[in-house]
Amino acid sequence: MPIIHIDPVRYPKVVIALGGNALIRPGEAGTLEEQRRRISAAMAHTADLVTAGFAAVITHGNGPMVGQLLLQMECARATVPPMPLFMCDADSEGSLGYLIQQCLVNELHRRGQERGVATVVTQVVVAADDPAFNFPDKPIGPFYSEVEATRLKTERGWHLAEDAGRGWRRLAPSPRPITIVEQKIIAYLLDGGIIVIAAGGGGVPVIRLPNGEFRGVEAVIDKDRASAVLAAEIRANLMISLTAVEYVYADYLQPGQRPLKTLTAAEARKYLEEGQFAPGSMAPKIESALDFLARGGARVLITQAEKLPEALQGRTGTHIFP
Amino acid sequence: MPIIHIDPVRYPKVVIALGGNALIRPGEAGTLEEQRRRISAAMAHTADLVTAGFAAVITHGNGPMVGQLLLQMECARATVPPMPLFMCDADSEGSLGYLIQQCLVNELHRRGQERGVATVVTQVVVAADDPAFNFPDKPIGPFYSEVEATRLKTERGWHLAEDAGRGWRRLAPSPRPITIVEQKIIAYLLDGGIIVIAAGGGGVPVIRLPNGEFRGVEAVIDKDRASAVLAAEIRANLMISLTAVEYVYADYLQPGQRPLKTLTAAEARKYLEEGQFAPGSMAPKIESALDFLARGGARVLITQAEKLPEALQGRTGTHIFP
Repeated sequence: MPIIHIDPVRYPKVVIALGGNALIRPGEAGTLEEQRRRISAAMAHTADLVTAGFAAVITHGNGPMVGQLLLQMECARATVPPMPLFMCDADSEGSLGYLIQQCLVNELHRRGQERGVATVVTQVVVAADDPAFNFPDKPIGPFYSEVEATRLKTERGWHLAEDAGRGWRRLAPSPRPITIVEQKIIAYLLDGGIIVIAAGGGGVPVIRLPNGEFRGVEAVIDKDRASAVLAAEIRANLMISLTAVEYVYADYLQPGQRPLKTLTAAEARKYLEEGQFAPGSMAPKIESALDFLARGGARVLITQAEKLPEALQGRTGTHIFP
Repeated sequence: MPIIHIDPVRYPKVVIALGGNALIRPGEAGTLEEQRRRISAAMAHTADLVTAGFAAVITHGNGPMVGQLLLQMECARATVPPMPLFMCDADSEGSLGYLIQQCLVNELHRRGQERGVATVVTQVVVAADDPAFNFPDKPIGPFYSEVEATRLKTERGWHLAEDAGRGWRRLAPSPRPITIVEQKIIAYLLDGGIIVIAAGGGGVPVIRLPNGEFRGVEAVIDKDRASAVLAAEIRANLMISLTAVEYVYADYLQPGQRPLKTLTAAEARKYLEEGQFAPGSMAPKIESALDFLARGGARVLITQAEKLPEALQGRTGTHIFP
């Protein structure tokens, strides 16, 4: 299959998922100026894409920011009741959404484009009986000593695990996203020519109670999975996942490492089943890509934020087709 | 002027400003369950209003929540770089927006109404040369000892003042809101039958740089003033301000205290000029009401959240007309 220039007429509606590394990098303290610089760079490319005619929804990670918030809450817990995880997600949808929307508006303004950009606080429904609730496996927040970990286990009923010699960390369940509560609102905004920021940090996880009401739950939703569900529900054509690597690789970090430039869904699934992609890293991105393509998506692009312009020309990145 | 039943045909578009006391009350620790209970009660009335046919935008305060966040950030500042005030505003737009939208969706669901509710993270433009930046007067965050206050003044250039014998507090500037960046998006959502939560905590204060870009500034915008600007810009007909008192009073807490049931703008202005309304409390609400009415608003209602149903029947609350 030849790599083609990605045409907004052919792929009018795009969901762009910003990985954590488009927001903050290892070694950075995570000051506001550092975050703003990273986000501005990613938004410059996004502004080009919007200027070229794509209708865009931007989703993003929030791991480092929620980690900082958990640390702050822990520190002040004697005087301020700490909030549950899902409230931290909601917080970060506000503050990261604000930064992203402001950077994008500014980048568009530089290009002479006065477009509306809206951050929509997003709730994502998960199943109350998702098996993940019995097997929390997503490490979040600060590191604890073994003594502290034992105490937290007893006092708060947390699950904790030792993390690669660096200390103990809380584990949160990571249930599958089922549907986006605000999907129709997001689609309506796109129809009006507005660029939307949504499902930040995978969205606020909620369950539906037997009486039909929504309620937040202690969990973390994978951002790529939530992005795929959102992309399918708003009938996006293209999903772009911006991450730390230029390509998806076969035999990644092995002697025979090679970039995968174009893949059919069947080929991607074969590699996935062979265990070529790291769990918690590339594997959920590929699973999300397959989910999106199976539900009507036309194309997935996985690459680095800084390579996006070249990748849109078809000159780099991993492109996956149904 | 006779008090009439408030008719959604006559006043189709309403902005409802929730005061801090619709979210948290003095003496409450501010746990999530306490906040949820308060917000659900206010949203029950709002759901009735929406069911009756009003198109509604909800704005809200965030004082107690930002106070808690500032305390948490202060506590962990040795390990996590604290964020500026405007990022705290953005955080609270996310988390309070989430709580309000979920409570409202649930209350609407109980009434058989499946309506879209969207929280839009809102930026509010202030003037870079607003005189308030030279005279910070809005107390925020935790109380400090005199020794700490002196240190913070030197180390961080904060303005601090002694607060009624309770300790020293940081003072933030409170510039006038000029315009709402997301006003067209909010109006578009309303046109689509979606209920909008916006300008939480008065919105994130931003200035416009000489190159046309937006940038956050260290300030706090009065929630009622921001609500009035938003209400005027989206051409709302009615503004409802939910606060701690059933009525606006003349000679408040004096021997001759009397409720003001209906007022013309001219009458309200006269009372305001007489100094009848407390600065930082009722005065900005009345100023905001007058601003809204001068810019085309048709009616303002000021009352307690729990009195809203009766007030909509015209049986209580203070009603102000042009």
